[in-house]
Amino acid sequence: MLERFKVPKKDEVRISHESLHLVVKAIFENLGNSSEDAEEAADVLAMTDLRGVETHGVSNMLRSYIDQYTSGQVNPDPRWSIEKETPAIAVVNADRGLGVVLGRRAMDIAIEKAKTVGVGIVTMNNGAHLGAVGHFSMYAAQQGMVGMCATSAGRGVLPTFGSEGRFGTNPISIAAPAGTEAPLLFDAATSQIAGNKFSLARRVGSDLLGGWIADDLGNPIMDETEVPEDYGGLLPIGGTRENGSHKGYGFLMMVEVLAAMLSGSVPGMFDEELFESGYKHYFAAYNIESFTDLELFKRNMDEMLQKLRSTPPAPGQARVLYPGLAEFEEELDRRANGIPLHVEVVEWFKNISEEMSVPSLEIL
Amino acid sequence: MLERFKVPKKDEVRISHESLHLVVKAIFENLGNSSEDAEEAADVLAMTDLRGVETHGVSNMLRSYIDQYTSGQVNPDPRWSIEKETPAIAVVNADRGLGVVLGRRAMDIAIEKAKTVGVGIVTMNNGAHLGAVGHFSMYAAQQGMVGMCATSAGRGVLPTFGSEGRFGTNPISIAAPAGTEAPLLFDAATSQIAGNKFSLARRVGSDLLGGWIADDLGNPIMDETEVPEDYGGLLPIGGTRENGSHKGYGFLMMVEVLAAMLSGSVPGMFDEELFESGYKHYFAAYNIESFTDLELFKRNMDEMLQKLRSTPPAPGQARVLYPGLAEFEEELDRRANGIPLHVEVVEWFKNISEEMSVPSLEIL
Repeated sequence: MLERFKVPKKDEVRISHESLHLVVKAIFENLGNSSEDAEEAADVLAMTDLRGVETHGVSNMLRSYIDQYTSGQVNPDPRWSIEKETPAIAVVNADRGLGVVLGRRAMDIAIEKAKTVGVGIVTMNNGAHLGAVGHFSMYAAQQGMVGMCATSAGRGVLPTFGSEGRFGTNPISIAAPAGTEAPLLFDAATSQIAGNKFSLARRVGSDLLGGWIADDLGNPIMDETEVPEDYGGLLPIGGTRENGSHKGYGFLMMVEVLAAMLSGSVPGMFDEELFESGYKHYFAAYNIESFTDLELFKRNMDEMLQKLRSTPPAPGQARVLYPGLAEFEEELDRRANGIPLHVEVVEWFKNISEEMSVPSLEIL
Repeated sequence: MLERFKVPKKDEVRISHESLHLVVKAIFENLGNSSEDAEEAADVLAMTDLRGVETHGVSNMLRSYIDQYTSGQVNPDPRWSIEKETPAIAVVNADRGLGVVLGRRAMDIAIEKAKTVGVGIVTMNNGAHLGAVGHFSMYAAQQGMVGMCATSAGRGVLPTFGSEGRFGTNPISIAAPAGTEAPLLFDAATSQIAGNKFSLARRVGSDLLGGWIADDLGNPIMDETEVPEDYGGLLPIGGTRENGSHKGYGFLMMVEVLAAMLSGSVPGMFDEELFESGYKHYFAAYNIESFTDLELFKRNMDEMLQKLRSTPPAPGQARVLYPGLAEFEEELDRRANGIPLHVEVVEWFKNISEEMSVPSLEIL
């Protein structure tokens, strides 16, 4: 994550991930989730904050999850079911359950299929927010799989040359295990920035860079700008056509097809009467043992990842990372030194703990 | 494709795709391919030029394929074999056969598996150049599948912040059928531009835009520049870190894992002694009927694609396209009016036809 999005030192309060897990679990139980489901949600959110993925951790997401449960949009007791199934694929109806709660179970189905026939694909319709899609890819990687996960929702991202939003930020992720190196973990919106970067930028008082968003008419805003109240939409990866936004547009579509269309559903761009639900998800597990020797695969991953991080950096750059390395290092640091939350977020937690009569966050 | 890469009107010579197919097939036979294999290659290359994908049609590729057969790098009589197989996946050893020749057969294996178990994944190691990866995704889409295809090769693309090339341009593609609309067809290098854009830009006398390549030290060149003889490498999708090159870096890695690592092989960045062959490929077919109703899927695709192309354009833009629409329109035009080749390419064909004693291109 760019420095501009991190919590400024002066505003940070460190809390332990154990305390965060405990409080989040209690909040989800308070919202009507079973203890088991609340545990799933706490696992996902605490791990996301441990990895430093602030956009999708508690600071941004918890408030909106509470709103969604309270308004009835999200079902705290989903009777999810398998609508279609073959030895290698399944289509799950989530019964408006939160993806954060159901995601691991969907990936478990994919993993079981992959163990049996080599690969497993699970799509999920009628769902709700999934959290950081990389979390579920990583869950598969921890079991000897290449994991992929993507989610389709919303209509805030413009197609190239367009002036009206048609896509969600449609994140996609892949994870793969290594031996001694940190696992590969790539997780990115297929828009220039995740929608959650807006609230993050507002909280930390940061501007947006040029080429990230468009004005009301669809013109890419090419200068650095304050976070606007009103704007035309997010731009696809690439930003402008000259800089490759048609590629971002293609990746946005890839996620619509894999997650929305292959779950027997439709994307967020459809008109209200045809659009049944907000979120559609895609989970894939490739059983590495079916393709090659797992230990050889891990050694090859180590070799590749070492080669990447030992690439001589360009002038002015400290080092070359690989996707997942910063998250791995962040997790080590945060397990030891706590998760830095913005003082404003800690204040919110204090209020919600009182309101719900759940335990308070312990400050380190 | 940006206007700057198209053959200037004054330099174009129109030829029929039938004539091109006939000549290309004869050239491949002359290079030692069976009639059946030569037919495959001619199918791929003629269709690529019909779709207007000049980077991967005859103008750029045929010369290098001839060099590769002549030097012995590519095997004109590959005894390809299946190394690993389960109901849903297969790993194929290509025996140094050209991907252009073997790609359809790999996708056929994936399609058969998808018909049986819902999805089929085929990876291919020990291969050679695949041509336009979108061609094979589209082949699957024509049979009621969502098709995906990607290829890993080379080391000319820099990781974010790096000064040495580590990746091939690692293209990835997806295709899906529609009803009345043109099929979705997305095919893009995960670097800012395809490597073949260099020869194309040189031929048509066009410059490169800022943010596409880096200088010898790894600094992104941010001004428009002539096609340089010497440079540091191509940049990942996004160009600079601020503009999202870490996302392009992640997509480059995605292709390395799916195509190289899951074919039991290693990417082009590996040192020579560990690096067995140049090209590794990934083919995926998702049987739409296993996930949902095929006719409903196509109607939903139509609705989505119509919605996209009827998006009001931003000021100064003629219209909003979707991935595959320009290629579809190009194909209609070129079937009717011929394929525009650069006069220099036609001259080359004349010489090679004489040299190999194969039929000459018929000029329209």
